[in-house]
Amino acid sequence: MTAEILCVGTELLLGDIVNTNAAFLSRELARIGVGVYCQTVVGDNAKRLEESLALALSRADIVVMTGGLGPTYDDLTKETVAAYFKLPMERDEKALEQIKCFFHKIGREMTRSNEKQAEIPKGADVFYNKWGTAPGLAVSQNGQTVIMLPGPPSEMKPMFAEYALPYLEKQSGRVFLSRTVRLFGIGESALEDLLHDKMSRAKNPTIAPYAGVGEVSLRITASGADQEACERLIEPVLQEITEQVHPYIYGVDVPNMQFALVRLLQERKWKIATAESCTGGLLSARITEIDGASEVFDCGVCSYANEIKQSVLGVSAETLEQYGAVSRQTAAQMAAGIRKLAKADIGISTTGIAGPGGGTPEKPVGTVYVGIDSEKVKKVLHLKLAWRNAEDERQTIRHRTALHAFFEALRLAKEV
Amino acid sequence: MTAEILCVGTELLLGDIVNTNAAFLSRELARIGVGVYCQTVVGDNAKRLEESLALALSRADIVVMTGGLGPTYDDLTKETVAAYFKLPMERDEKALEQIKCFFHKIGREMTRSNEKQAEIPKGADVFYNKWGTAPGLAVSQNGQTVIMLPGPPSEMKPMFAEYALPYLEKQSGRVFLSRTVRLFGIGESALEDLLHDKMSRAKNPTIAPYAGVGEVSLRITASGADQEACERLIEPVLQEITEQVHPYIYGVDVPNMQFALVRLLQERKWKIATAESCTGGLLSARITEIDGASEVFDCGVCSYANEIKQSVLGVSAETLEQYGAVSRQTAAQMAAGIRKLAKADIGISTTGIAGPGGGTPEKPVGTVYVGIDSEKVKKVLHLKLAWRNAEDERQTIRHRTALHAFFEALRLAKEV
Repeated sequence: MTAEILCVGTELLLGDIVNTNAAFLSRELARIGVGVYCQTVVGDNAKRLEESLALALSRADIVVMTGGLGPTYDDLTKETVAAYFKLPMERDEKALEQIKCFFHKIGREMTRSNEKQAEIPKGADVFYNKWGTAPGLAVSQNGQTVIMLPGPPSEMKPMFAEYALPYLEKQSGRVFLSRTVRLFGIGESALEDLLHDKMSRAKNPTIAPYAGVGEVSLRITASGADQEACERLIEPVLQEITEQVHPYIYGVDVPNMQFALVRLLQERKWKIATAESCTGGLLSARITEIDGASEVFDCGVCSYANEIKQSVLGVSAETLEQYGAVSRQTAAQMAAGIRKLAKADIGISTTGIAGPGGGTPEKPVGTVYVGIDSEKVKKVLHLKLAWRNAEDERQTIRHRTALHAFFEALRLAKEV
Repeated sequence: MTAEILCVGTELLLGDIVNTNAAFLSRELARIGVGVYCQTVVGDNAKRLEESLALALSRADIVVMTGGLGPTYDDLTKETVAAYFKLPMERDEKALEQIKCFFHKIGREMTRSNEKQAEIPKGADVFYNKWGTAPGLAVSQNGQTVIMLPGPPSEMKPMFAEYALPYLEKQSGRVFLSRTVRLFGIGESALEDLLHDKMSRAKNPTIAPYAGVGEVSLRITASGADQEACERLIEPVLQEITEQVHPYIYGVDVPNMQFALVRLLQERKWKIATAESCTGGLLSARITEIDGASEVFDCGVCSYANEIKQSVLGVSAETLEQYGAVSRQTAAQMAAGIRKLAKADIGISTTGIAGPGGGTPEKPVGTVYVGIDSEKVKKVLHLKLAWRNAEDERQTIRHRTALHAFFEALRLAKEV
């Protein structure tokens, strides 16, 4: 099966917002074996919308549309689809009820124009919206399927998962399940080299790699009669992969490394503390991004100045003088110092040259030391993170430093 | 003049990456008065690429393409455009030289396949690439223009500014200049209400609002014979707008609030220090994102636990007991405490309930206090930042808290 994605919205054409919906939908569709061959964005213009829909349906089995389901006269998605399939519009009373409830919930008055949002092409499947006002819709005729979802990602994403995905699964007679293995410390091509045979042989489940900034994911997707059948297919493959690349795996089905770290520390009932120079608070900001962080994190110090490294973290004046702030010795003392100050189980520290200025021939931009301190383990990583893309270099160095620091902390908490 | 954007890349169709190029190009084209009516993404497929190009050129004067300029056989952009305009391909020696130089610069060997990147449609304008290997190209014939840029945003964006924009300006016989006024504390619709007459009357320069998360921008764009003529047109409008909404303006032509703050503090030779609870290091992470931050920032403390608020920042046990950690009194003592610890000119603090848990009827999720402390000014803001979108609520509350804190610090540094 093939699909095209058709996003409707003047704000996309003006470049006011980035089209994250197309990427999300493409990825979800690829996962369930539906190839996306074209993504199109058009504005709220009847003729162009009509043309684009007809063109997409001439090439693909499924068209997933987002946007244009709002209450105003220039929201035309439903009307265009109804006209294409020659369906009259009719009111769906349950949708109207849902819209009224939503306004009640957010404590606002429903306006007359919102009633338009309860009009649907006759016979369409209605996806009642719990996250906003516009219901989603699906129409299938003669092997052509159009799915319509609201434009805001905060409504579109849950509605895709709750309604559109089961709708497509029902059409295909199969359900799909994915698990995502997240890895650090191995590049995408090295991972592909390692798993090449497995990946190319894999039909069900499939194995697909995704490259992030400084990390890689593997998505294992099975299709089967039900969730359990999928799980049975995935399990042995996940196990094999785990055996093969386990030193690089930081989590399965976790959104990011800080999430994996916070959850593991919660399990361990351990506390972590951060002492940051070049990352400047990025470590603590990421840890506290995760709800529940307060159970594992009491204190972070961003000691940008040497004086603070001394007065707050207890780095010695001799160390700073002899080895400099960007050194193995300073990183070690920062990590030990913050662990003591915070009475934590693990202290992690960063000190380095994030650029663009500050580099020297001995310590060029990208020179970073990451310190780890626990009762049993004391360790300093020496990283060389220079990155050729000048524009983002500072942010990339800081980001990669954070990944290294979290990965070391995870490793430490796992090993014990 | 109208344009369409045609992005080529299988990684976009798979949803591996989000198409930020389309938004960037749409915005840049809108700025110079070129309306974008359609954005399309296709993969590395000869037939579909050919069809999409022909369709786009049948509807628009200009097609801006990104991607598909790589060295491999499935990079087809140039070849497709050459075929459309019936131009032979030929080698551009200067482009080849540039590619060799680039590989030399990054210390890697050029491969044979990269030679393909120096092949161009005969007679095309070549945009030599200083940021990567693939040169950009422009072909104009019979009122149809195709501009080809590399896919990576770090190459595409500077190449658009340096080559494509002047190329389009040359065609239109005018140059364009924009200035962006950044505002905080006023919503997009309130701003439009205030400036409605001015905005709808404005022809040259034009005035366009853009809504960000928690902030708004106004872009003033003039067209004229040269940069100076544009500046003369913009100046009085910028001045009028400044007079009308100056309490909300945090900067002109600055990328974000932390940039404006760091630059102003550098000017003032002031130091700032941060004491963070609910933002957990976000303030210090953002300040240190800006190069030069070390001149204005020595120390930030993320005091997530009450004990740290007491031991490191000197918040009194009585205050914590009587008013709680999330209170006006605690915020004030945190700001004063960090200012003293860091020997800074300004101390800023945050304490609040970012959610999803931790709310109470008296202090629901979104209750935040921001403290500001300087020698002359001591102030605490009480914010209510609850946001209905559950998924992002925690991050949105933290983000908005940071904006409020930085804005107050900016105001303080400006007033003196």
